[in-house]
Amino acid sequence: MIGERLVEDMTADERDRARRVDSILPVLRAAADHADTTGTFPTGHVDLLRDAGLLGLVVPEKFGGLGGGLRDLAAATYAMGTACPSTALAYFFHNTSASRGLLPLEAIDAGLFDADEIPVVRAFAEKVLTRMADGVWLANFASESVKTEAANITIATTASKVDGGWILNGEKSFGCATGVADFYLTSAVLDGHDTADGIATFFVPREAPGVSVRAPWNGLGMRATANNGIRLTDVFIADDEALAVPGAFPKMLTRSRGSFVGNQLAIAAVYTGCAQNVYDEALAAATSKTFADTGNPVASSPVHQVLFGEMTRQLQTAYLWLRYQLTVETAEPPFKSKQDVFTQWRLGKGSVTEACFQVALGALKAGGTSAASMQGSAGRALRDLAMGLVMTFPAERGMLEVAKIATEAKANELFATAPAEVG
Amino acid sequence: MIGERLVEDMTADERDRARRVDSILPVLRAAADHADTTGTFPTGHVDLLRDAGLLGLVVPEKFGGLGGGLRDLAAATYAMGTACPSTALAYFFHNTSASRGLLPLEAIDAGLFDADEIPVVRAFAEKVLTRMADGVWLANFASESVKTEAANITIATTASKVDGGWILNGEKSFGCATGVADFYLTSAVLDGHDTADGIATFFVPREAPGVSVRAPWNGLGMRATANNGIRLTDVFIADDEALAVPGAFPKMLTRSRGSFVGNQLAIAAVYTGCAQNVYDEALAAATSKTFADTGNPVASSPVHQVLFGEMTRQLQTAYLWLRYQLTVETAEPPFKSKQDVFTQWRLGKGSVTEACFQVALGALKAGGTSAASMQGSAGRALRDLAMGLVMTFPAERGMLEVAKIATEAKANELFATAPAEVG
Amino acid sequence: MIGERLVEDMTADERDRARRVDSILPVLRAAADHADTTGTFPTGHVDLLRDAGLLGLVVPEKFGGLGGGLRDLAAATYAMGTACPSTALAYFFHNTSASRGLLPLEAIDAGLFDADEIPVVRAFAEKVLTRMADGVWLANFASESVKTEAANITIATTASKVDGGWILNGEKSFGCATGVADFYLTSAVLDGHDTADGIATFFVPREAPGVSVRAPWNGLGMRATANNGIRLTDVFIADDEALAVPGAFPKMLTRSRGSFVGNQLAIAAVYTGCAQNVYDEALAAATSKTFADTGNPVASSPVHQVLFGEMTRQLQTAYLWLRYQLTVETAEPPFKSKQDVFTQWRLGKGSVTEACFQVALGALKAGGTSAASMQGSAGRALRDLAMGLVMTFPAERGMLEVAKIATEAKANELFATAPAEVG
Amino acid sequence: MIGERLVEDMTADERDRARRVDSILPVLRAAADHADTTGTFPTGHVDLLRDAGLLGLVVPEKFGGLGGGLRDLAAATYAMGTACPSTALAYFFHNTSASRGLLPLEAIDAGLFDADEIPVVRAFAEKVLTRMADGVWLANFASESVKTEAANITIATTASKVDGGWILNGEKSFGCATGVADFYLTSAVLDGHDTADGIATFFVPREAPGVSVRAPWNGLGMRATANNGIRLTDVFIADDEALAVPGAFPKMLTRSRGSFVGNQLAIAAVYTGCAQNVYDEALAAATSKTFADTGNPVASSPVHQVLFGEMTRQLQTAYLWLRYQLTVETAEPPFKSKQDVFTQWRLGKGSVTEACFQVALGALKAGGTSAASMQGSAGRALRDLAMGLVMTFPAERGMLEVAKIATEAKANELFATAPAEVG
Repeated sequence: MIGERLVEDMTADERDRARRVDSILPVLRAAADHADTTGTFPTGHVDLLRDAGLLGLVVPEKFGGLGGGLRDLAAATYAMGTACPSTALAYFFHNTSASRGLLPLEAIDAGLFDADEIPVVRAFAEKVLTRMADGVWLANFASESVKTEAANITIATTASKVDGGWILNGEKSFGCATGVADFYLTSAVLDGHDTADGIATFFVPREAPGVSVRAPWNGLGMRATANNGIRLTDVFIADDEALAVPGAFPKMLTRSRGSFVGNQLAIAAVYTGCAQNVYDEALAAATSKTFADTGNPVASSPVHQVLFGEMTRQLQTAYLWLRYQLTVETAEPPFKSKQDVFTQWRLGKGSVTEACFQVALGALKAGGTSAASMQGSAGRALRDLAMGLVMTFPAERGMLEVAKIATEAKANELFATAPAEVG
Repeated sequence: MIGERLVEDMTADERDRARRVDSILPVLRAAADHADTTGTFPTGHVDLLRDAGLLGLVVPEKFGGLGGGLRDLAAATYAMGTACPSTALAYFFHNTSASRGLLPLEAIDAGLFDADEIPVVRAFAEKVLTRMADGVWLANFASESVKTEAANITIATTASKVDGGWILNGEKSFGCATGVADFYLTSAVLDGHDTADGIATFFVPREAPGVSVRAPWNGLGMRATANNGIRLTDVFIADDEALAVPGAFPKMLTRSRGSFVGNQLAIAAVYTGCAQNVYDEALAAATSKTFADTGNPVASSPVHQVLFGEMTRQLQTAYLWLRYQLTVETAEPPFKSKQDVFTQWRLGKGSVTEACFQVALGALKAGGTSAASMQGSAGRALRDLAMGLVMTFPAERGMLEVAKIATEAKANELFATAPAEVG
Repeated sequence: MIGERLVEDMTADERDRARRVDSILPVLRAAADHADTTGTFPTGHVDLLRDAGLLGLVVPEKFGGLGGGLRDLAAATYAMGTACPSTALAYFFHNTSASRGLLPLEAIDAGLFDADEIPVVRAFAEKVLTRMADGVWLANFASESVKTEAANITIATTASKVDGGWILNGEKSFGCATGVADFYLTSAVLDGHDTADGIATFFVPREAPGVSVRAPWNGLGMRATANNGIRLTDVFIADDEALAVPGAFPKMLTRSRGSFVGNQLAIAAVYTGCAQNVYDEALAAATSKTFADTGNPVASSPVHQVLFGEMTRQLQTAYLWLRYQLTVETAEPPFKSKQDVFTQWRLGKGSVTEACFQVALGALKAGGTSAASMQGSAGRALRDLAMGLVMTFPAERGMLEVAKIATEAKANELFATAPAEVG
Repeated sequence: MIGERLVEDMTADERDRARRVDSILPVLRAAADHADTTGTFPTGHVDLLRDAGLLGLVVPEKFGGLGGGLRDLAAATYAMGTACPSTALAYFFHNTSASRGLLPLEAIDAGLFDADEIPVVRAFAEKVLTRMADGVWLANFASESVKTEAANITIATTASKVDGGWILNGEKSFGCATGVADFYLTSAVLDGHDTADGIATFFVPREAPGVSVRAPWNGLGMRATANNGIRLTDVFIADDEALAVPGAFPKMLTRSRGSFVGNQLAIAAVYTGCAQNVYDEALAAATSKTFADTGNPVASSPVHQVLFGEMTRQLQTAYLWLRYQLTVETAEPPFKSKQDVFTQWRLGKGSVTEACFQVALGALKAGGTSAASMQGSAGRALRDLAMGLVMTFPAERGMLEVAKIATEAKANELFATAPAEVG
């Protein structure tokens, strides 16, 4: 199983699920180049993944899924990342929709909802999970283009109550599987709210009246993710296709072990798979190509030795951060606080993606000018992995956030034990 | 003058020539995006440069040129690099053809040729220069795809003597302005030779029988340079369109102040211009875009401060290496030996290109996901500047070469002054 | 337990042993500065460690030891590293002597020795272990100053057979606890041998006739390790104080899971403990010192935020490499081949020590000029951690070795599956 | 001349002055190790420098000096840095005292002082210069230990008017040549002032009543600079030994081409000289030491090639930044604004010192464990150059300051040409 290179201690069940993933990789690999060139998500991949049962990978068996967890998801997106990072990324976002089902159910179990709220929360949560298990692709649309200093994510899409449902208006700037997914699982703010309590979630059918696709996104990398985003103009969503209980969103978040809705390390797994693949291809090329005069492989030259030494170190660095993050987010019982898991991720995301990018840079150099083409292994990986540097947040932001957490925690601790000298 | 940002102490004549360059930049800038997207050199640019007199920029006035030198060339390719790096690069290779005229003339003056060789050498050299001054575009085709451990460049194209001229056969893997230049100035090895003495130079007309263009090169960056390369199949070139005097090539090289035929720093100037431009655009974007809640420019955020601090340092680093290289290659009288100039360049090439690439990376991060597009300022610069990392040689190779030179020189010096302990 | 910061999943038994380590840390910490200033190992520390039972930490219980393993050793040297890195390093070398007992016993069990060899091998092995358990300090002296291109370690000390024992002659350039240990466990080559088969091990009593201490070693850091080294001039060692069975050394090495006699990651744990301590002290200083005008902690300044962000990332990087190495060297059943464990360490050693050194550099900068003193926290850590960069091998060497392993393995694999194009 | 390695285009006069510097280097070099070990400034060096005329190096000839400028000073401190960085640093601070004479004279010429102020300003300024030319060592004491967020330097020492002079009270935390200089040129704030207008300058005789030396400073590096600092307790200074004209300090600063009183690049020259020396020594050691089995110099090993390649690049980087800074601070006519000169230095200081430190790190690694000693070439350079990282400000601070300048300038420019979209 490819995924075992990341998750080295798979259980038998995990290996069974990973086998399904491996079975589809040849198709992903074969389609990857054309998908990147044209910047289109290969629509056949939806059937491919559905037929392999993989749309329900992380849905509990009692809802009809395969019963996998975050370890399965990371192993899957990693493995897919070695074949087609775009597909792996789009698949990740489908899977992260499961959080919209799993976390509310955990919040119910934790007693966070009132008795009268429980039925509607449970119904929505189970609908998310059963749809996924049934082979429905659920894109997850949260990002918007407005930036604020106070928050990492700002939601401006609105939901206004009307008879029997809600009217949505707004624009989502980023979200894989635009025009591909069966539903866009969409966040919007309920009329009359201005805090996170007002954030609600809606099943927006792909073809619903008022839904339009934004102009094609011509990304530098990860081009085959159908990432255009959508505009919602007076889109009506019926009540039973919404989770509009005020406060549901923050309650759900308290159940996540890591940041936000969790799982984000599985994006970093996509990049690590991509890096492993470009490393393997660069190594194969440099060891099979030989110098015309000596017959030695070009990989034996001093400069290639320097490059492969550094690439190996960087690749290993990515694995270490990723595996440790996976451990702290899945260990039972947990051995890190939610705050520490979050902090670890603020460093880990940047560390994994920077290391992966360095692998691609090394591969580019190892291949030389003739291999520096748009669609070649190194060129494509460089573009795909460049996206990793900026997605969510760059490494520099993660480091600054962690510095703030570390220094303020220490300052508070000092203040608590001894009065500070200056008021 | 844009070029003054690089060449800070321009003379009045240099400023006049730089003015011609500045005058064409708006057209280059306007065409750059489409040229990159389609991967085609805008053919109108040949007329544009010719009409501005720039095809003869570095040709002495007595041959009808503008009389510029390496400082002019670097200022020009730098300035063009801020507008369209691909055009700047193709233009550089045209100009480097002038070495095929200037260096042989210097070699004659230095007494390196016999009396009977001088007329034919002089005739060829002057033909190169007068053609350039007359507005003929001379592409410079030297690279081939065979690699050897012993040499940086290996020439496998052959020239066989026939009545009245030569028959060329071979393939050139890299050379800007394929299908665009009026002539390809082409290196080939004369029959019966296996050292550099046998390297000859030929004017190969673009449309000569037997000349074919290789499959389109789909580069990661520098895509609008028409870099496909050519195949030569039994191409006949008349005697008076060739410099086939054995030994002419190494004699010519002794006259170059730096490595090979010199001038290569003007390629690094292209990259530095590109880096300056992406820096400027990133700064303009980050200072004009504001946070929705506070109205502060996003450039004021801590993470942007870190990014711009680092970008500024990297950009300045590129300038320092480039300016110093320009100084050591143009100072009169020279104050560094040819060996030292060469060594400086082995470090300098990598230092400039790595620094420029870091500027593009910083710009990518400063722009965030939404600006990470294929054609956007940061995306294009990242691709163009990635080419700089691999062109000619990567930074790692330059450092290893310099280490070898430094340690062997010292070991020899120690050996000369005191017998080494071990034979 | 301090060591739990490194070994996060300690067992109850491991915690018991770690408690012994924690109990002696205050004494180590109190003595550290004076020990560094004077460059002397605090001799009282031998009793301290003996009384705490720690000289037998990794000796099996059946030989009278505490029964700890590599996890205990790493936790212990890490914890001591937070208090006095020099003591931790010297203690490490005592513990690594246990390999001279444990590995031969494993080799016997694996059937590597003949029946007539077994009694003498077993007797020597058990003597090593019981002496350690009994509170005898066994320094481990292997390094010599001769360097060869072919091998990492070259042994020139000789052992000549005489009646009833052996006569040793040679010099050991490096080895902690010179003049402190009860015995120097010393490697020498038997007369008439020139391969590793001839390497034998001897108990050399500290005060044996012919043993002299070399001139004091005035190290940059790790100054309190008593690292002078010894000279052996016609030193007689009785037969039963030697393991002189030809072939014993390479047989023993086959039983080691990692490189050489294993355990070396526990040196990296010393450095990581030191890095954690200097990080903690820098954080405490920067959060308690305030600006005179605003009363804010200096840690809140932008430059301190950048420094602490980077220091936190580097420190975490050290932990990740170290913990993973510990996992691959202790997991039961093993999940990496010996070759892979070795390769991992060639990268890991450099990665841990470079990261730790960066933490010290960050602390130096965070403290500013006034804190940049010889004995201050940052100054001492900088010196101690600089030793980590060069001990055994620098990071650059590890990377080059791994590159060689990776590229040759791939080239061989390609050759095995398909004939290479060039013979 | 050693200094020509930095200042490559010395004039004949500059070469004459540089010859004086070279003549004293052997003495400096011979004394350096003992000075570092004991942490004491070799007092004989004052006579040595005085006898060579070097105490008046940058004093105009009309005041009896040698007439050198910043280029001479940088060449001198660089050359001394190759022999004894501590002496070079102390000598730098003596020379920077000249600014207290030169800048006020320039301010007078620029019409910044009233007619009644001119005589007293001129008298003081000329006294500074003639004393230096006469062989008086003038230490320059400005730093204090209080830190504020608003300013880089905060002065808390006070001067109260009394009959015939001033009473000084305060503490100076840093200042070379404590107990060595003839006078401490000392800044203090005049009673009743709380802005820079109130900063006055005093000649404080070394042995004046009330002057005491602080506890010995046990620095990590630059240990032989006599850097203890002083305490001033009711120290009386006569009127004619003070420049107490309100406003004189800021007026003087306007005449400086770079930051503060200028010249700071000559500190970076000290570090660059130190780096060149450790590079040379590491190269000599690695090329003369050979492998026992092959007889090849250890410098030929792959790891040494990597190390020396990187060291060469870093050393060259230091020179480039330093030379360019020297150019922008000395070119006539100036071609950069004062603001740009300042900005360049904020980047340059960090770039030079980080590069120099990397050279020392490389030398440490090239030497291996056995050369990693306290007093060895690499160990001493590592400690001396570590001080460069923190003196004045670390590289990270410089980069953040430059980012702020660049982004605010751009934001203001955008605001000026087009109304910003938000507030």
